[in-house]
Amino acid sequence: MLDVCLLGTGGMMPLPYRWLTSLMMRYHGKSILIDCGEGTQIALKEKGWSPKPIDIICFTHYHADHISGLPGMLLTMGNAERTEPLLLIGPKGLTKVVGALRTIAPELPFQIQCVEITENFQCFPFPQEAFRLEAFRVNHNVPCYGYNMVIERAGRFQLEKVLALGIPKPYWSKLQKGETIVDGERTYTQDMVLGEPRKGLKVTYCTDTRPTESIVENARGADLLILEGMYGEPDKLAKAREYKHMTMYEAARIAAEVDAPQLWLTHYSPSLTYPEEYMKDVKKIFPRAIAAKDGRTTELRFEED
Amino acid sequence: MLDVCLLGTGGMMPLPYRWLTSLMMRYHGKSILIDCGEGTQIALKEKGWSPKPIDIICFTHYHADHISGLPGMLLTMGNAERTEPLLLIGPKGLTKVVGALRTIAPELPFQIQCVEITENFQCFPFPQEAFRLEAFRVNHNVPCYGYNMVIERAGRFQLEKVLALGIPKPYWSKLQKGETIVDGERTYTQDMVLGEPRKGLKVTYCTDTRPTESIVENARGADLLILEGMYGEPDKLAKAREYKHMTMYEAARIAAEVDAPQLWLTHYSPSLTYPEEYMKDVKKIFPRAIAAKDGRTTELRFEED
Repeated sequence: MLDVCLLGTGGMMPLPYRWLTSLMMRYHGKSILIDCGEGTQIALKEKGWSPKPIDIICFTHYHADHISGLPGMLLTMGNAERTEPLLLIGPKGLTKVVGALRTIAPELPFQIQCVEITENFQCFPFPQEAFRLEAFRVNHNVPCYGYNMVIERAGRFQLEKVLALGIPKPYWSKLQKGETIVDGERTYTQDMVLGEPRKGLKVTYCTDTRPTESIVENARGADLLILEGMYGEPDKLAKAREYKHMTMYEAARIAAEVDAPQLWLTHYSPSLTYPEEYMKDVKKIFPRAIAAKDGRTTELRFEED
Repeated sequence: MLDVCLLGTGGMMPLPYRWLTSLMMRYHGKSILIDCGEGTQIALKEKGWSPKPIDIICFTHYHADHISGLPGMLLTMGNAERTEPLLLIGPKGLTKVVGALRTIAPELPFQIQCVEITENFQCFPFPQEAFRLEAFRVNHNVPCYGYNMVIERAGRFQLEKVLALGIPKPYWSKLQKGETIVDGERTYTQDMVLGEPRKGLKVTYCTDTRPTESIVENARGADLLILEGMYGEPDKLAKAREYKHMTMYEAARIAAEVDAPQLWLTHYSPSLTYPEEYMKDVKKIFPRAIAAKDGRTTELRFEED
């Protein structure tokens, strides 16, 4: 089960009625945050989720509306007596930006590890929790990345196969968990006890970009697609192109191309007070599009076998 | 007329129901902000006041809850197409801290001037607008200052005196505005046309400190005293001492000592959910104390003659 909450849906500046765009996911005891603008810690508190168990914060890019809330978030995590290390992932320059922001948050009771993305596509596996994060380059006016949260799901335990292979019972559970066991001349591996891998879960999050082929490629197979819909007014396409953002219609076209089960739009311009106004036309392109509001939450579950 | 709005009343971290402590004052076309934590720009927007005309931002100190909102505020002022220069005033280190935070707000359409406070008491006069800001050192665990906003008010025009001195009429208005005029062997000065200076206006703002003699000295004559009341629970005095904060009772004692017309308490600990609960005891010390809430506003006017 993967909990997903879009804490805010605003772009550029936080508003009294709209937090800046940020996504929190909880899975297998780990909490992952993508982007942390001014006010994200308040949105999180409003949601009722704790900042303390955040183990990973990913940044799409370093425009202030995506990272200005970091010093406050770190201090609040420290005040909550977090001591476990925190992993930060972001485009090149992460160490420098975090170092600068920590001028006002110098003392923390936990270690911070910064990992900079150096490739156009980069995978960050967390084998113990059986998920991976994937970063893929998009097209903004500064280096910017979209993210996939991918949860793998192993095949079912195959009793008949195990018995046929004569694998000793004490090994079954270890093999199922991924261990390899050497017993004399025989070597037992996970695939000997499991069937074909089952469908896992995937969330794709992408904001602050023009539409790109990389988004389409990476959004394929996502159970939930979260994309920027900065503008709804048809005459704002030129502005979207100039400042390298995406309109609601462009996001809908991507969702249609990959046939996503659902699309949440986010990162609205402060000038876009009522995104719902444009949804009739957006839904003509992609009927399963939703103009997300702050705090929109879902619980993604594995398919029943 | 001086507009005063306490935009937020929280300390340490912003909460869904409480912005971080910050004060905005508007006088004579100038807007002055004291402290700018995470969310201050949202509180300002909620109040309905604009960030664009902020000409001066003063910082008490550089703990994140007093400055973390600066990058976002600067960018929002830039997005509002401000082009006039902005003056920042704060303890030593201001240039370094602002430089670090501007890593995420590098491009602005206006100049920023940083002035660092180097003395225990320092006056910043703005003669054109007939007010001055005064910074006075207080006692926190990092260098920290309280601020006075002092508006001077010249005496009334004294027609009888002017006629008796035989001052030519074309000079009257210039002299009243403060010019000195040399006419042949005679020198005319402002005091020749005005009576005794009248009572002006004064606001004293002070947070993040133990009680100090400097607060008492500087709060004398204030029309409005705004002081930290971090804790209300009597058993928190030791904590206040350890972390160099002030309890509601200590603030009330200062207000009583200087016989302030009114005291607004602010900078409540996140643990202090209902400051009003302690006001009965606070008012025993100083009856004109108010447990301020976010957005508390007043309009201070000159006394009628």
